Amino acid sequence: MSAPTIRDVAERAGVSKSLVSLVLRGSEQVRPEKRQAVLAAVAELGYRPNAAARSLSERRTRSVGVLLNDLRNPWFVELLDGLGSRLHEQGLHMMLADGRLNRHLGEDLTRIFTELRVDGLVVVGTLPGSEELLAAATHIPTVIAGAIEPVLPHVDAVAGDDSYGAILATEHLISLGHRRIAHIAGPGVAGALRCTSFEMIMDDHGLTDLATVEQGDHTEEGGYRAMVRLLTAPERPTAVFAFNDIACVGALSAAEELGLQVPRDLSLVGYDNTYLARLRHLWLTTVDNGSHDIGRRAAQLLVHRMKDPGRAEETVLSEPRLEVRGSTDSPSTS
Amino acid sequence: MSAPTIRDVAERAGVSKSLVSLVLRGSEQVRPEKRQAVLAAVAELGYRPNAAARSLSERRTRSVGVLLNDLRNPWFVELLDGLGSRLHEQGLHMMLADGRLNRHLGEDLTRIFTELRVDGLVVVGTLPGSEELLAAATHIPTVIAGAIEPVLPHVDAVAGDDSYGAILATEHLISLGHRRIAHIAGPGVAGALRCTSFEMIMDDHGLTDLATVEQGDHTEEGGYRAMVRLLTAPERPTAVFAFNDIACVGALSAAEELGLQVPRDLSLVGYDNTYLARLRHLWLTTVDNGSHDIGRRAAQLLVHRMKDPGRAEETVLSEPRLEVRGSTDSPSTS
Repeated sequence: MSAPTIRDVAERAGVSKSLVSLVLRGSEQVRPEKRQAVLAAVAELGYRPNAAARSLSERRTRSVGVLLNDLRNPWFVELLDGLGSRLHEQGLHMMLADGRLNRHLGEDLTRIFTELRVDGLVVVGTLPGSEELLAAATHIPTVIAGAIEPVLPHVDAVAGDDSYGAILATEHLISLGHRRIAHIAGPGVAGALRCTSFEMIMDDHGLTDLATVEQGDHTEEGGYRAMVRLLTAPERPTAVFAFNDIACVGALSAAEELGLQVPRDLSLVGYDNTYLARLRHLWLTTVDNGSHDIGRRAAQLLVHRMKDPGRAEETVLSEPRLEVRGSTDSPSTS
Repeated sequence: MSAPTIRDVAERAGVSKSLVSLVLRGSEQVRPEKRQAVLAAVAELGYRPNAAARSLSERRTRSVGVLLNDLRNPWFVELLDGLGSRLHEQGLHMMLADGRLNRHLGEDLTRIFTELRVDGLVVVGTLPGSEELLAAATHIPTVIAGAIEPVLPHVDAVAGDDSYGAILATEHLISLGHRRIAHIAGPGVAGALRCTSFEMIMDDHGLTDLATVEQGDHTEEGGYRAMVRLLTAPERPTAVFAFNDIACVGALSAAEELGLQVPRDLSLVGYDNTYLARLRHLWLTTVDNGSHDIGRRAAQLLVHRMKDPGRAEETVLSEPRLEVRGSTDSPSTS
């Protein structure tokens, strides 16, 4: 079967070729229904405009656009370091754009990067809607780093294995002798995977009835509030596994305000191994996603895709490891 | 006197007009001596290629390039927030580039932004060399935010008033009753200004002999080490003013490891009012530079300069204020 053409996309979507072209150039002149029909057809057919990819390579800017979701959360700093070092081996620069900082405009940042003629796009976390990403990916080699969704044709993804990371954290607390363990859950697919693994491992050890899940979010305040709820309940946990390091810092503050000493009275595990976890004053046991390595692999996938835009998309999971520091210990026997 | 032309620059520098043009386009084909001579002539004459500025406005990308020095230090997050909100009112996007993350390439990021045809350039902190900045500023409206050096023709600058901020911090500690006070000093012009103010205020209060300055840097480790030296000296201070929040967190860890409780045994003041200082677990008294406001003013200056590239450069100092939290108190009488 030959590769699908723009005519095939237009037929499938029931629109003209020029309208397909408008959508793929990110035009805002197209009605939402038409736009959705075109992008659905692009996805179903696996359409890729090779001519556009070729003409792009002729006017290279040697820049890679990197989309971030929030500079306030330091989890991606190591990832960018790994990404940058490998891209630079190829003579490529990184240009960053923060979705939260640019939120005021409510505009599609992938389109801005397209206009700036970047040679590639790396989405860190899950920021733009699938539609915008799909449209950009038809023109620009695109890779998702630090998340494995959405799955889109010709878009590679590399992320930490959230299920395995949560298993490491939970097994660590159980092996220290903890039985009554809580999880402060976070948002999105990563939040769901970590929570499911926590519950599964608690089940495996016959601790189903001693497992608590408290909904938090990815902020310090969310971790703080979840912890206050956990510690004011009748039967409080002796150990808590938090969705990420920032929520874990919030949980730590709540524990200390309620007169508990960490790790003597309560063990805490974070996630991401950010520089927060490495501050001596915090010194959190945490799960290291291997973010530097994730960044390097994302760069590698991007370089491959630049050379061969039509290859099938690849999803890579990086294996996390536990970093044991000062916030976990055996439960006190009191 | 009429505005200087490219011919004037060439004559002053003793080179050809085409060489001046090469230098201003950031070419790497020019020998360093020639390059320096051209840039010196540009600075002395206050040369500004208006034709280039005009042609730039015709091919607007509606993007502003923002140069950062290190994403690991969170001090500029608020600044970017203020910068972005005001730029977006003008329909402009921010593209960020991190000098440290791009260090591997050893290339001039201002040139990359020029190639990407950004409409303006904001340098956050002091990153590129004066020469690169001067060359970029002849083509692109340029503003420095968060630093007031280097002073260059047609380059505006807006920053916090470091001298005044350090006065606020030092007066606060003295008003609480502290006498033996130390300063952990930091790098650069900001470091020198803060240190000088600290010493001046201690002098004013007749506390010259009780003032100690310990060299630190802008990292947690630097603050930690400086604090260990301060606390193991024969006469230790009852209060410490640190160069920034990160150094202050390092100092806090050192104090606690040596068995001191903050603020009971030791008061600490940071600088920048980063989100670190606002973490409940740290809750540092700190100097707020008004970074959000600095960002907004930088955007305003940039927009003015886009409209009138030839106007005289302006330097704006923003007034800091003290944010009193949990790390300072009166000295214990023990």
